[in-house]
Amino acid sequence: MELRKGLEDIAIKETSITYIDGELGRLYYRGYSIFDLASFSNFEEVAYLLWYGKLPTRHELDDFKSRLAEERSISEDISTFVKRTAKFGNPMDILRTTVSMMGLEDRSEGDLIGKAIKMTAKIPTIISLIQRTRRNQEFVEPDPSLSHSENFLYMIRGERPSPSDTRVLDVSLMLHMDHEMNASTMACLVVASTLSDIYSSVVAGISALKGPLHGGANSEALKQFMEIETPDNVEKYVMNKLSSGQRLMGFGHRIYKTMDPRAKILKEYANQLSKNEEIKRLFEIANRVEEIGIKILGKRGIYPNVDFYSGLVFYAMGFDPDLFPTIFASARVIGWTAHVDEYLKDNKLIRPKAIYVGDLGKRYVPIEER
Amino acid sequence: MELRKGLEDIAIKETSITYIDGELGRLYYRGYSIFDLASFSNFEEVAYLLWYGKLPTRHELDDFKSRLAEERSISEDISTFVKRTAKFGNPMDILRTTVSMMGLEDRSEGDLIGKAIKMTAKIPTIISLIQRTRRNQEFVEPDPSLSHSENFLYMIRGERPSPSDTRVLDVSLMLHMDHEMNASTMACLVVASTLSDIYSSVVAGISALKGPLHGGANSEALKQFMEIETPDNVEKYVMNKLSSGQRLMGFGHRIYKTMDPRAKILKEYANQLSKNEEIKRLFEIANRVEEIGIKILGKRGIYPNVDFYSGLVFYAMGFDPDLFPTIFASARVIGWTAHVDEYLKDNKLIRPKAIYVGDLGKRYVPIEER
Repeated sequence: MELRKGLEDIAIKETSITYIDGELGRLYYRGYSIFDLASFSNFEEVAYLLWYGKLPTRHELDDFKSRLAEERSISEDISTFVKRTAKFGNPMDILRTTVSMMGLEDRSEGDLIGKAIKMTAKIPTIISLIQRTRRNQEFVEPDPSLSHSENFLYMIRGERPSPSDTRVLDVSLMLHMDHEMNASTMACLVVASTLSDIYSSVVAGISALKGPLHGGANSEALKQFMEIETPDNVEKYVMNKLSSGQRLMGFGHRIYKTMDPRAKILKEYANQLSKNEEIKRLFEIANRVEEIGIKILGKRGIYPNVDFYSGLVFYAMGFDPDLFPTIFASARVIGWTAHVDEYLKDNKLIRPKAIYVGDLGKRYVPIEER
Repeated sequence: MELRKGLEDIAIKETSITYIDGELGRLYYRGYSIFDLASFSNFEEVAYLLWYGKLPTRHELDDFKSRLAEERSISEDISTFVKRTAKFGNPMDILRTTVSMMGLEDRSEGDLIGKAIKMTAKIPTIISLIQRTRRNQEFVEPDPSLSHSENFLYMIRGERPSPSDTRVLDVSLMLHMDHEMNASTMACLVVASTLSDIYSSVVAGISALKGPLHGGANSEALKQFMEIETPDNVEKYVMNKLSSGQRLMGFGHRIYKTMDPRAKILKEYANQLSKNEEIKRLFEIANRVEEIGIKILGKRGIYPNVDFYSGLVFYAMGFDPDLFPTIFASARVIGWTAHVDEYLKDNKLIRPKAIYVGDLGKRYVPIEER
């Protein structure tokens, strides 16, 4: 039996959802380049594409948008729970618990994608309620006449966002929707392979995404820029960090050996958002970290990843830093459920083994003789 | 890249916790035979053994028992939630949600095993509250002067159980505590490998255990005995089932190619518990299914597994059938957390890949032209 800790280079499934070209720094959803989708498409269309495998016609898209928009309300129970816990709870703990509550509440016989639509629609409502409760602001009811991203920002801010802000969130969410296999998607598949329900799968995905080695990295990257304080401090900070054997947050990826295409796209948007002093300064710091980081680490294939600029973008959009992993989850739920749906078409229970290295045949000694 | 759906014969870790000898039908915890532990040991001692790697001295055991006993109470929030959902909710959905709530509530910096002790102590309280709420019975507060299993039955029944009933539950729980790698333990490890918290890991474990291919099998096996109704119907039932290509519930295991040692032990206890007419009849039916099943399937290495008799034992002890997976979880939480603790001593992020089989380089077509 082979010991394969981490499962590196083991394929758990075949897929036609996402392809990553790590050498060239390309990412494809259902065969479409992420650069094209980021330029021409939008949240609802890409969600449809990932779940159903094709771009929708106008009629299909309209229908799908209303299905999503209608499902944004959360139950009284979930809302009460979020209000009671928002001020002390970790947002990922709250999200994990409330999605678990959704599973308990949903007694419909609906299909997997139908339930995935419900989760995708409701998660932004939960995130907004967390942030507004903490800030002692009134809850803003979702508005079904707005698009997914427009409504998300509207619920966070209490006023309708500009088209350009909406576009930034829309693209950011698209970029986070899927990324082939990873720890959280794997957690979803392991759960699904026992024929458990889709809410249980997503709860496992959120549980995994919470970890600092996974969805927690974006707020760490932002924290790093804040710690640096001014662009002049960058060089010293990076040198100190690397010479003491620490990692640069937001750098490096197991698959990309060049700049992560998502980081490229997000960098442009971060630049667009650099309107006030604070964001401008953070963006300059980030740029400088990128430059020096690549100079030192680039030859080893270590480049900025998606988390490098996404935290800065989310922060500039008005989200609290500890909410970033929940925003990540609000988009990734689409990839998780698309992969589960694909896996279940030819399910096989995921059950690895372990290699025993302990003693055997020990004699049981009564407690008095120990 | 190799496609290894199901991860069969891939070792995710080295372990010194549990060893399964599938050919001989032997199971060892930390090197001790399960037959010895079932004969001489008890719940608390085996939990200690799995977590700390050695049998406790009298002093260590006393100390450990009081730690466990002190942690049995659940918060007002969790208790209110269980009472509100017990009559309509799936018990595994309730357990998944309430353990997630525990994670949100626990703001201590405690060590992993300390938190595992809390979950292990509180889960029986939640299970008992589910069952008693559904039966319109008053909640029974945990009694810290009783052992884990004695208290569990006391909370379920509202009166102190006999020593022999306590022993049956104690042994049943020991048998369910760990079983090397499996889908739920794998789900826990995937989550832990991102450095997420131990509650998130256990929530993922519960999510996976819920599936009918995993923890759901014990109630299915019991349902099968109930459907058969009398021992005379067994032969026809089994023949019909197998000739129509269906599986016999509680038969077969990926590793055991002979009788599961846990089934052997549970069979004896099921026999002991066959005091009233209903249980006696179900036990006779189960015996007959075992006999005929082995005659037909034994030559292909398909034998009764742990689920074959555990459902009958839990039912005879007074638990509702849809609670069985939660009882399984109440014991398996020990194995899950022991494996996470072991894995984190030399952590590696679990991140498999997928093989892309779709198209690439598709041209984005504007919606009007689709």
